[in-house]
Amino acid sequence: MADIRIRPAIAGDTGLILALIRELADYERRAHQVVATEADVREALFGDRPAAEALIGELGGQPVGFALFFHNFSTFLGRRGLYLEDVFVRPDARGRGVGHALLREVARIAADRGCGRLEWVVLDWNEPAIAFYRRLGAEPMSDWTIFRLTGEALARLAENDGQTPGRQAGP
Amino acid sequence: MADIRIRPAIAGDTGLILALIRELADYERRAHQVVATEADVREALFGDRPAAEALIGELGGQPVGFALFFHNFSTFLGRRGLYLEDVFVRPDARGRGVGHALLREVARIAADRGCGRLEWVVLDWNEPAIAFYRRLGAEPMSDWTIFRLTGEALARLAENDGQTPGRQAGP
Repeated sequence: MADIRIRPAIAGDTGLILALIRELADYERRAHQVVATEADVREALFGDRPAAEALIGELGGQPVGFALFFHNFSTFLGRRGLYLEDVFVRPDARGRGVGHALLREVARIAADRGCGRLEWVVLDWNEPAIAFYRRLGAEPMSDWTIFRLTGEALARLAENDGQTPGRQAGP
Repeated sequence: MADIRIRPAIAGDTGLILALIRELADYERRAHQVVATEADVREALFGDRPAAEALIGELGGQPVGFALFFHNFSTFLGRRGLYLEDVFVRPDARGRGVGHALLREVARIAADRGCGRLEWVVLDWNEPAIAFYRRLGAEPMSDWTIFRLTGEALARLAENDGQTPGRQAGP
């Protein structure tokens, strides 16, 4: 077994975590979407009201990956779950079990907190990741599609005057 | 314009919200998945550490729908977002703008709190909902698949002894 250690992130990891977020975005061909700053990450993970939690994966004493997650909530279960926003291991450290150890620790935290589910999303072309998730027993929710409202469209709806689009308003 | 009112849910709405959750599950052909109790909903929405927030939609003074949401977090944006877990309007009250008013209020809350995104999921066969979301300017994230680990598989990973499945462990 390789020398793997999974530990909670500390404030001193902020720069490392932002670097890993950027490497993940690059791997996902979405580097242009990363606008987060070190201050944003510090506030989100270590501020007064944390928005998320993170784990660092080390191999041979060197940080090589991370997992970042927060609580969601299922109305059907009536219980919190955990949502895994990011899990990433640097390419040259893959195949040694760090990703598995990160996911196992997130699953342990979910179980310890009585969470009913652990969920995340994956890009459809990322076949190695999909095969890995299936080996863990995770199931694709293939009949659901995520919708996102952002930028101008979100602002437009927020400022909307109350007219239903594409429908005649009236009693 | 119909007599629509959107208001924050109060503790006295707990039974109503659970009834609406069950009606939504029935509409989604998932009634068998609802195990939440009134105590679960009360704790999640009105307990010491709320897991979610809810709005009630009224038509002519009668409650006819709800929206339930919580914060998520985007590492790429470095900001919180809002995740809309449920939005539902009773069938006999549809087409009057209550769903639009609920989504508009959620969008307003997102904008007020500086959220970068509002996200939710929809079942692929729910074409009226998909058309409605598209009219609002929401975009399907069609290249992503949700993965879920739950029940036995989640417990198994949490209790795992450290062996990577399907891979030879070793230095």
